Amino acid sequence: MQPRNASVAVVGAGSFIGAAIARRFAQEGFAVHLGRRGGDKLAPLIAEIEAEGGRATGRSLDARDPEDLAAFLDEAEAIAPLEVCIFNIGGNVSFPLTETTDRVFRKVWEMGCFAGFVTAREAARIMVPRERGAIFFTGATASRRGGSGFSAFAAAKFGLRAVAQSAARELGPKHIHVAHLVIDAGVDTDFVRERIAAREGREALAALPPGRLMNPASVAETYWALYSQSEDAWSFETEIRPFAEKW
Amino acid sequence: MQPRNASVAVVGAGSFIGAAIARRFAQEGFAVHLGRRGGDKLAPLIAEIEAEGGRATGRSLDARDPEDLAAFLDEAEAIAPLEVCIFNIGGNVSFPLTETTDRVFRKVWEMGCFAGFVTAREAARIMVPRERGAIFFTGATASRRGGSGFSAFAAAKFGLRAVAQSAARELGPKHIHVAHLVIDAGVDTDFVRERIAAREGREALAALPPGRLMNPASVAETYWALYSQSEDAWSFETEIRPFAEKW
Amino acid sequence: MQPRNASVAVVGAGSFIGAAIARRFAQEGFAVHLGRRGGDKLAPLIAEIEAEGGRATGRSLDARDPEDLAAFLDEAEAIAPLEVCIFNIGGNVSFPLTETTDRVFRKVWEMGCFAGFVTAREAARIMVPRERGAIFFTGATASRRGGSGFSAFAAAKFGLRAVAQSAARELGPKHIHVAHLVIDAGVDTDFVRERIAAREGREALAALPPGRLMNPASVAETYWALYSQSEDAWSFETEIRPFAEKW
Amino acid sequence: MQPRNASVAVVGAGSFIGAAIARRFAQEGFAVHLGRRGGDKLAPLIAEIEAEGGRATGRSLDARDPEDLAAFLDEAEAIAPLEVCIFNIGGNVSFPLTETTDRVFRKVWEMGCFAGFVTAREAARIMVPRERGAIFFTGATASRRGGSGFSAFAAAKFGLRAVAQSAARELGPKHIHVAHLVIDAGVDTDFVRERIAAREGREALAALPPGRLMNPASVAETYWALYSQSEDAWSFETEIRPFAEKW
Repeated sequence: MQPRNASVAVVGAGSFIGAAIARRFAQEGFAVHLGRRGGDKLAPLIAEIEAEGGRATGRSLDARDPEDLAAFLDEAEAIAPLEVCIFNIGGNVSFPLTETTDRVFRKVWEMGCFAGFVTAREAARIMVPRERGAIFFTGATASRRGGSGFSAFAAAKFGLRAVAQSAARELGPKHIHVAHLVIDAGVDTDFVRERIAAREGREALAALPPGRLMNPASVAETYWALYSQSEDAWSFETEIRPFAEKW
Repeated sequence: MQPRNASVAVVGAGSFIGAAIARRFAQEGFAVHLGRRGGDKLAPLIAEIEAEGGRATGRSLDARDPEDLAAFLDEAEAIAPLEVCIFNIGGNVSFPLTETTDRVFRKVWEMGCFAGFVTAREAARIMVPRERGAIFFTGATASRRGGSGFSAFAAAKFGLRAVAQSAARELGPKHIHVAHLVIDAGVDTDFVRERIAAREGREALAALPPGRLMNPASVAETYWALYSQSEDAWSFETEIRPFAEKW
Repeated sequence: MQPRNASVAVVGAGSFIGAAIARRFAQEGFAVHLGRRGGDKLAPLIAEIEAEGGRATGRSLDARDPEDLAAFLDEAEAIAPLEVCIFNIGGNVSFPLTETTDRVFRKVWEMGCFAGFVTAREAARIMVPRERGAIFFTGATASRRGGSGFSAFAAAKFGLRAVAQSAARELGPKHIHVAHLVIDAGVDTDFVRERIAAREGREALAALPPGRLMNPASVAETYWALYSQSEDAWSFETEIRPFAEKW
Repeated sequence: MQPRNASVAVVGAGSFIGAAIARRFAQEGFAVHLGRRGGDKLAPLIAEIEAEGGRATGRSLDARDPEDLAAFLDEAEAIAPLEVCIFNIGGNVSFPLTETTDRVFRKVWEMGCFAGFVTAREAARIMVPRERGAIFFTGATASRRGGSGFSAFAAAKFGLRAVAQSAARELGPKHIHVAHLVIDAGVDTDFVRERIAAREGREALAALPPGRLMNPASVAETYWALYSQSEDAWSFETEIRPFAEKW
């Protein structure tokens, strides 16, 4: 692997999609800088990337704190010019409308939308002066569709999509590629598997045919494809789902 | 006018659309209860409605305060059973992404989205037990389209639309009509006229042909039409604009 | 009822929605001119409208024949100035993609899309010179969503929506109101009841709770509300469904 | 280049996007089979591909003739198993609604929508039995937005999108990847350059900054990225445009 003088910051480098994106870009020679809640959980991922000859750093990050976010991106920039910024925070919760507290609604928004806005703004602050870079957002089915029990989550994800779309229109002419990737199905994570077990039973989970859940590495591949587009033909939005998914 | 034993609460009873909606429902015999910033400005509207034989009350309302919002809807319910709740708070601002402060982004969201969520939840609290009522939201072009300079406003309006869509799916089967009305053009207000003058000059404003701006009363008419639908054929969303508008 | 010097042409005046629209406008004093396949089936509807003091005429119409369509609208115009033109032809069929013949695909499109285009064009020919009138289209769920087994029907309905949207943008500035109404659920017709029985059994049909199907008169009411909008606040599109509908 | 035992059929292998797609897949070792009006114009492209060690065949194709289309795909299958089918026929025309003849509306639809349906059906006929393959459609801005003067073109493109969406939902579970790529800007072709000159003058064309038009090769790259997705994370739709494009 040929190291590049460029960094990738991952806001929300969780154990699945975020980790897969980190691996994918590290593999292409980028120095990846990883932020998540409980930053000590990053150790195995960093070790793995380094074992394969890549460069990775990381730490605990409270994405709801604008100053912490700005500092996190500055750290990436200090390692190598910030080339790509990935915002990958979810926060999927479900409550009936009348049982959704102010606190839940606000917190889901702070993680899922406000933190995304701050990420976009702080990445733009760094990228606009040199007119290059990419800012990618992870969306969900709820980014384009509200649902019973999903007022908090959908409000955050719709809002994030608005930020992404506004940023794309504002930053595109400044040579910064902004994109929004709608993950329209379950990703193969422990959390999703447990949810299926809870809803449909252990047998259903055991009998789950291949192709019902997405491999995080496959999701990361689409981020890489977006980054690889030349600037005369940029995508703003696409959605991915497994072949057998109903939609 | 035949008085009805039913109230309409207007959250955001500003001088234009909110006032027009208040007039329209008062004219149909509803007791209207009006909330806005600077509640003393409500006096002429209340006087006007009463002069025409209607019933109107109102007060200052800080829509970003959930307790105040809940109390406001309880007041309407105390006057007469809460039949309709209108959420009509805008908060249109425009700043480049890198100049949008945390404070602005958060405040626009608190007014435009969070307050709408609390309104929906508190109205549902009152309406769900008796399985009747209507909750209508005022949207804007930015509810469905982000734009350069509009990350804060679009994030709030997209989020409000998510709340409305989630609430519609959750409350519809409980006989509560939730709708979202996209106002896709300028309404004829001092604010909009000043903005045109600032952007295009006083001559442009003076030369503005009829049909370029919407009369608030025409907007209110669509709210009335939505309320008049029978429950076997409810609309969730529609958009309105003047005949000559480019879209 | 006060007769008006104005006519309404209904292309696709079937036994349900089309008939209900005819009744609604006749009741407001319009002379309605009705076209459908098997025009002899129009006799009871015409008799009913006349018994209530309205004016109605009608005949067999082959909507796939542009000359016949143009003549049909000219007949309405000869009765009284053509004020409203309703395009209400469906053609819902379902076949797997590989079993959809050229003939079926083409025929569904000729009825559902091409006939709608010709209707718009011929109504515009009459209405544009006097800069007034309304052209309304009946859409369906398949107007905005393709589905397995629905390539032919969705292609026609998407296409019709494109015609409506293009016509709205072109004719709006000429004071002609173009709108597209998405019927997003079953209407209470023999055809729909039989389909439910076939799919879910006679018991399911018998046990169908109220509010699962739309009354054609309720649909017609939304057409009337659209027509009643003043031109500074026109809707292009709305969708209707019963309160209990999943969407 | 390693030859693969697989063919790619390009319906609408014009001089720009279609040719670029052909080059891109030929370069990956596929045997490309090319169809277009005026098939003699294919000679230079075929020579170029062969000069670079690729395999290419082609001929005149009347895409409005279902039998000719079926035969064309069978020819590709005879060369090597049909792995990818690209439908790339445009037909952009613009006429005011009242000047759009039946003939124009029908012809634009036959090329832009009906031919796409037949392509999907005939490709499915070949691909479904072995449960593998990809069918990709080229869309345009008018696939999702009608416009004044575009009733014919938008009706065809909306219809094609309906076919693609229906086919994706039907064929996805059978392991066939169906995608729709919205080209939301001008591609760098003689036709587009002439249109700019006609609309904005020769000076405007000469002064056109880089990044206003898309390079066909960049468009082809996105087709390749779509094909490269693994089946647990397929995209149905994405749109591409140059960085500086207003949207």
